[in-house]
Order: sequence, then structure tokens, then C-alpha cells
Amino acid sequence: MSVSGATQANIGVVGLAVMGSNLARNLASREGNTVAVFNRSPERTRLLTQEHPEAGFVASETIADFVASLSTPRTAIIMVQAGAGTDAVISQLSDLFEPGDIIVDGGNADFTDTIRREKAVSATGINFVGAGISGGEEGALKGPSIMPGGSVEAYKTLGPILESIAAVVDGVPCVTHVGTDGAGHFVKMIHNGIEYADMQLISEAYDLLRRVGGHSPAAIADVFADWKTGELDSYLIEITAEILRQVDAKTGKPFVDIVLDEAGSKGTGVWTVQNALDLGVPVGGIAEAVFARAVSSHPEQRVPFRAVVTARPEIAIVGHTFQEDVRQALYASKIVAYAQGFDAIAAGAKKYNWNIDMGATATIWRGGCIIRAQFLNRIVDAYAKDAALPTLLIDPYFAEAVANGEAAWRRIVSTAALSGVPVPGFAASLSYFDSLASERLPAALVQGQRDFFGAHTYKRVDLPGTFHTLWSGDRTEIESEGSTH
Amino acid sequence: MSVSGATQANIGVVGLAVMGSNLARNLASREGNTVAVFNRSPERTRLLTQEHPEAGFVASETIADFVASLSTPRTAIIMVQAGAGTDAVISQLSDLFEPGDIIVDGGNADFTDTIRREKAVSATGINFVGAGISGGEEGALKGPSIMPGGSVEAYKTLGPILESIAAVVDGVPCVTHVGTDGAGHFVKMIHNGIEYADMQLISEAYDLLRRVGGHSPAAIADVFADWKTGELDSYLIEITAEILRQVDAKTGKPFVDIVLDEAGSKGTGVWTVQNALDLGVPVGGIAEAVFARAVSSHPEQRVPFRAVVTARPEIAIVGHTFQEDVRQALYASKIVAYAQGFDAIAAGAKKYNWNIDMGATATIWRGGCIIRAQFLNRIVDAYAKDAALPTLLIDPYFAEAVANGEAAWRRIVSTAALSGVPVPGFAASLSYFDSLASERLPAALVQGQRDFFGAHTYKRVDLPGTFHTLWSGDRTEIESEGSTH
Repeated sequence: MSVSGATQANIGVVGLAVMGSNLARNLASREGNTVAVFNRSPERTRLLTQEHPEAGFVASETIADFVASLSTPRTAIIMVQAGAGTDAVISQLSDLFEPGDIIVDGGNADFTDTIRREKAVSATGINFVGAGISGGEEGALKGPSIMPGGSVEAYKTLGPILESIAAVVDGVPCVTHVGTDGAGHFVKMIHNGIEYADMQLISEAYDLLRRVGGHSPAAIADVFADWKTGELDSYLIEITAEILRQVDAKTGKPFVDIVLDEAGSKGTGVWTVQNALDLGVPVGGIAEAVFARAVSSHPEQRVPFRAVVTARPEIAIVGHTFQEDVRQALYASKIVAYAQGFDAIAAGAKKYNWNIDMGATATIWRGGCIIRAQFLNRIVDAYAKDAALPTLLIDPYFAEAVANGEAAWRRIVSTAALSGVPVPGFAASLSYFDSLASERLPAALVQGQRDFFGAHTYKRVDLPGTFHTLWSGDRTEIESEGSTH
Repeated sequence: MSVSGATQANIGVVGLAVMGSNLARNLASREGNTVAVFNRSPERTRLLTQEHPEAGFVASETIADFVASLSTPRTAIIMVQAGAGTDAVISQLSDLFEPGDIIVDGGNADFTDTIRREKAVSATGINFVGAGISGGEEGALKGPSIMPGGSVEAYKTLGPILESIAAVVDGVPCVTHVGTDGAGHFVKMIHNGIEYADMQLISEAYDLLRRVGGHSPAAIADVFADWKTGELDSYLIEITAEILRQVDAKTGKPFVDIVLDEAGSKGTGVWTVQNALDLGVPVGGIAEAVFARAVSSHPEQRVPFRAVVTARPEIAIVGHTFQEDVRQALYASKIVAYAQGFDAIAAGAKKYNWNIDMGATATIWRGGCIIRAQFLNRIVDAYAKDAALPTLLIDPYFAEAVANGEAAWRRIVSTAALSGVPVPGFAASLSYFDSLASERLPAALVQGQRDFFGAHTYKRVDLPGTFHTLWSGDRTEIESEGSTH
């Protein structure tokens, strides 16, 4: 399957997994494009060309043939897994490309890798463009939002090709030259962080309508469908309505009720918050979305916590003093902050293989440091009773201390919200407590959203295995090999 | 000033800035220790030995003499600025030390650097111990909390020396062998993250007592002093009472009112959250504390925001529907999340020198991606009107949209707090809004705390320059050269 000298492609794609195949098909479907394709294992290349003869792919089985099949300036989009694989392909192409040619990384690279790669490749005279490509598999096929970085020079050749395949809204293609070197992947990262926040906020709205409003998922689906007609109109609101309307065929229950409420995450939400921290930008909305998924993914804490947490207290509005309420809110929030800190120590010890004695740690903080406090003796006691405590919040002393202060804590966060006094720490701590205390979290809805737009799969509460619903097909459920959870 | 063969020190300190000098004096004050000292510029070594003849320091002007002055196994604590300086000293000592000797890094190193350094140094047979040392300047002199990592072997020699200088509580020295390689610096990092949360929570309690309770700083000082007698007893509560009681000599006003309410931060709070994100541990209490300082440090957003934000709305408890309240809360929270995301893009563009067109970015997200929405057109409009908008929240459309939903948003966060439904995203977004809307933030109190325990200095609202109050002296204010703000 080597290439005849006559067939020259104006654009090539390296890496033909779903995203790469779909992008190649999208490119081939547009007037004026001839698309070269290459994959490390040639079986996949053969399969793609056989299944899509209409695309007229120029297929190669070696990287040298692939490069030879491209007209100059050669332009190739790499669609392989971010990381070492990307570096390997860049190295191969760099050896064969000439100055003025263009290497595009269309994967989900860390923007600092893109800055590094652009510097190294551009030193050879070859252009390097890191391009964030959004919209998942369907977007790649039908029209993604594309965020290319790299040089203005490279964009002159690459821009028209990307514009030909991007989504179009009001006649404007969803692609722009974002900025130099890593700017494209940076903006794609922030985009994903915002996506995390958007999904989390929708899931909170759902949870309130369900648990406070008392509405069924089907009724809430109608609410979201109604909201879609107004200023909240968006793809995520739309698919949320679809997901909430879905009924599980196996049980007859609402789909959202059979989904395991432990939401996973890939890297970009975490990266967004980490980079915002470096930049000194407060991104609480995004951070809390990432944390909400993290809380949901710790059943080893949620289950024992629910066993000790008391029923929601009666919240008396009279018969208490504001000042004493503040004190109790402060103590409860402080216990949560310390519990979270000790969780981080336990997780670090596990990851880095340190045998850290949690009680000894609390002991040595009782003096000689800023957080010295009597309180640390209670932590020492807690770990003395159970060195492997899954969270400080289930230790009897702390469970009782928080229970004693819970009504006051709720009144204070409520009062702060109504009176306009910012309480980011009190409120985040209370939400963490309420997340641990919730038997079901709206993480189940987030899992539904992720399965809907990205085929990320989900687990069920009632069956082993990993599942995917054919959302853009007949909406039946299939069992999935492996999980991206 | 070279060393006579007769004088052998059992412990040495390299780096004699305040922390190193104080630690050396602390070591010298303990029975059985003879302390070798070395500093890159010998003036500082001479000054220290002249000012503290009682310490009996063995002083050297070259690193070779310093090493020669140590008895075996040689043990040296490096107290230089974290980073390249530390690597340089480790390299010098490694060249002169022998297998079995011990190099201790007592600085605030990133624990991943400590893991790297331990691996490299221990390969030579020399022990390397990264030790977190807490308690600031006073702790170093009088007794810090010490968190050493490294090998069990090294701790056999080092442990008794560290135990001799650590703080002692109930007869127990505040030092323990935390774990191998980077464990000590990791735990010190988490300690600092918890410290951030603790300070933030106290400042929220103060803010509530001031703005909702209507109490004066002096009255709140009495409240904190009272709280110190109960379960909240801690050093931070104690110094908060002291700070709130302080009256500014220049104006006669409460000290906390003349402090500029822009709180700075060093690295460890940020590192804690970044690492917790890597570990998948939700640390909302710590993260919101870091973000609260970040919000306070952006006057370029706070000032114009306050000019457009409306007065606190009347919160009617009747005459609204819950479902419509949820919708409005969702929209307001969503606007905040997008505003934060665009802030991160602006900050990234500035740091990495990318000329990013914010409006074009919103434009290309209108299709082909998960967050596609009509709403993005409003962002395009906002940046078309002002490409350098300091925050989306001051654009007239968004300011009005949030103002329209504000009362509903407050009712929803209040209701969620009272009813036990977690709303981490809604609540964090509202607190961010309220932080931007606050003319004064309790960051002023945090600055007071930082100046009290770490001499971090502060700025005043009414005078240029940087100031420090002599908290452990006569509590007068001095003007400070430079700032660690």
C-alpha cells in the first residue's frame, strides 16, 4: 500500500483511534482536501480505508511513505495519546519534514509540554502547532471547536484547513489563532475547567429540585427543557433534560437513579485549578466542581460517615445567640479543614510509600508551630483508637462535636448568604460535610452527562461491570469493555 | 578564623539568615551540643559570633574548614533559601562529606525536590534528610515543631539533636521521624495548608461578628479571648484577640481597620491544594482559603466591581417560587464560573506572553464543544465593548443578569445550607461575588496574623510603604524595608 507519486495529500493525520479517524473523515469530506493517513499498527489504517472508501484516503504503512504522500508545505495532525507517544511521533516527523512544514498536535497536551515542543521543533525551521480540539468524537467528525496555538506563519497554511472542518455558528467557523506556542492548549484546558463547573452547577440545581423541591427526574427533565428556552439555553442543559427523561430498561427506574454516583475525571479539570493557583486567580467554582467529583469517588469515607452522622437537626431560628452560632460554625469548619488535611497526608503516604503515623504527626504540631492548639490532642486520641481511620469526621469525639454545632453552622452559612458576607471557608466545609452525608450524590447525573457527550461509560448501583447508553442511537444500554472512569 | 584541630562540633548550620541564626543559637543553648556555623558571606558569620559569644560557635569562613570542624558522623543543617541555593550547598557538602555523614535540608523545600535530592545523595552513601521546620523565627530560636524525613539510620544520630531543640508539650518533644525521603517536607506542606484554612475561618468568624453582629474589633477581641478558654483554644485564636485589641497609634483607629486588606501568600498553601488535586483529595476548606487571599489581592477587579454592584437586595421570603429561584441561582453561578475561567485565560496570556483575543475565544466555543451555548454571545459582546474588561461581572449585561438573580441565589444557598443539600459550586460562586462586592475584606485580619507570627509586614490604607508592628516588643509600628507581601 505504498503511495504512487501522483497522489499528493494537502493534509495528513497520524493516529487513527476514534478521534483521529473521525477528524480524518471530517477533513476528507470537505471540498479541496485530500487526506493522508498513518497509524502505528497498519491494521487500523486498512480498516479505516476499507470502511470509508468515500473518503479517498491516501494511506501509508510507513511514516516515510506518509511524509512522501504530502504536498508541501507538508501539514500533519498528530492524534495520539498525550505524553510520550506524542513526543515519539514529533521526533519521527521532524526527521523527515523540511523547514516550512507544519506539525500539529491535536491531542490533549499539557500546554507547558506544547511550549517546550514548539521551542524545540521551531528551532529546526519546522512549524509546530499545539491545537486543542473540543467536542469529543462527534465533534471531531461533524465539526469541533478548534483552539490552535503556534506561529502566525503556520496559521496562514493551517487556518483555512481547520476552518473547513470546524463547527460553524452564525456563519463563523469555531476556530481562531489563539496565540503563540502553548496558547491553544492552555485555552483548551480552561475550557475544560469551565465545563467541569457548568456540569457541577447543573447537577446541584437538579439535586435541589429533587431533594428540596421533591420533584421526580421526569418532572425535572421538563424543568430543564423549559429552561433551555431561556437564557440558560445550552447543550449541557439540553442533554441533562434527555438524561433525566431516560428510563432504565432493566429496572423501570429513572436512569439517573441506577447510575453509580462516583464521578471520575481526566486531567484537564485538575490542571485548570492547579494552573489558576500558580497564576493567583481564584477559581472556586471550577475547584469545587473538581472536588465534588473527588468526594463522590471516596466510598470508603462516604459509607462509614453516613453510619455515624445524625439525622438533619431541627434548625430552630429562635433560641440561640448569633455569637455562639459563629463559634460553633468556626469549630465545625475547623474540624473539616483538619480532616481534609489529614486525608491529604494519608493519600500522600500511600502514593509515595511513606509509613506516616498520623497520631505522631498531630502530636508534633501541638507546639512550636502556628497551628498549635489543644484540639490536636483530640486528633492524637482519634488515631490512637484507630490508626487507619478513613476520616477524622467519624471519630466519636469529632462526630459529636460537629453534630453539636451542626444547626448553628447551618444557620450561619444561611445568614451569611442572605446578608452578603463572604464565607468561602465555612460554606465549602459545610458542603463537604453534606456531600459525605448524602446517601446519593448528583455525581450520578454528571456520570450520565459524561456518558452522553463522551461515551465515558458509567457503573450501575445494581450490577457489576461498566455500561454505556447509546444516546445518539436507540438509547439502549450496552455493556462496555473497560472503563475510562 | 580557621578551626583548631581540637574543637569539634557535633552539629553544623549552613546559612545564617534569621532562621539559620536562631536555629544555631537554639542548638548551642542545649546541653551537649557544640555548633559549627558557616555562611556564604563571612560578615554574617562574624556578626553572629560577636553578638552571641555565649553560644560558643565554631565558626568557619570556608566550607572545607566548616566540614573539618565537624565530628563524625558529620551532621549539617542547611538553612538557605529553597531552590538552587539549596542544591549548590548540597553539592559542596557532598563533595566533602563521607558515607554515613548526614546532610539536613531545614528549608521550605518542595517535597518532590527532596525526593530527588535524597535519591541522589543517598546513592553516595551520605544520608540526606529533608526536615520541615515550623514556627517561624521565634520557633527556630525557642523550640520549633520539626518534621524530618530521610532514613531511619540517619534519624538515629539526628533524632536526639532535633529532640533537644524542639518545642516540648506535656513532656513530649515536637519532632518525630515522619517517613522516608520527602515525607517530612510533604507533611510540613500540608501543615501550612491547614494553617491557611485555620486563619481564613477565623477571619470569616471575625467578619460575621463585625458585619452581621455589629460588634467593634475590641468587643470581638473579647469574644475571641473568651473562645480561647474552650475547645477553640489555640495560638491563632489567641493572637487574633491580640490583633483585634491593637489600636493604631497614628490614627487612634482599630489596627485591623488601617491594614490594607490584600493578603499575600508564599508557596505552600498553593502547593498543598495542587498536590491534593493530584492525589484526588477534596480540600475545599484549604483551597477556598488560598482563593480568598487571591481575591483580596486583585484590587483591579474589586474596585470597578463595587462601582457596578447594586445594594444588597431585599430578600423576600415569600412571593417567589423555589424552582425559579434555582434557575436564577444556576445562571448567576454560571456567570461567575465563566468570569473566573476568562480571568484565568487573561492571567495565562499575561504570564506566557500570548496575545489572546477573549472575544474570539468565546466565539469559537459557540459550537463544536460541550459548553456551547447562546450565553457565549453575551461574552463576545462584552469583550467587543471592552477588550480589557477586568472581570466579566462588570459588563452591564452580566452585572444586570446577576443583580436580577441575586435575591434568588441567596435564598437558594441559604435553603441548601439549612436543608443539608451540598451546593459547593453555588456557595463558592456566591462567596466569590460577595468577596468582590465587599468594600473591606477580613484579609486585613489575615495580614495582621501573618505580621504577628511571621513578621510578614503589611501595607496601610492611609500611608505608602510597608509596615511591621513589634508584636513581641512594645507593639509600636515600624516602617519596614521591602516586603514579603
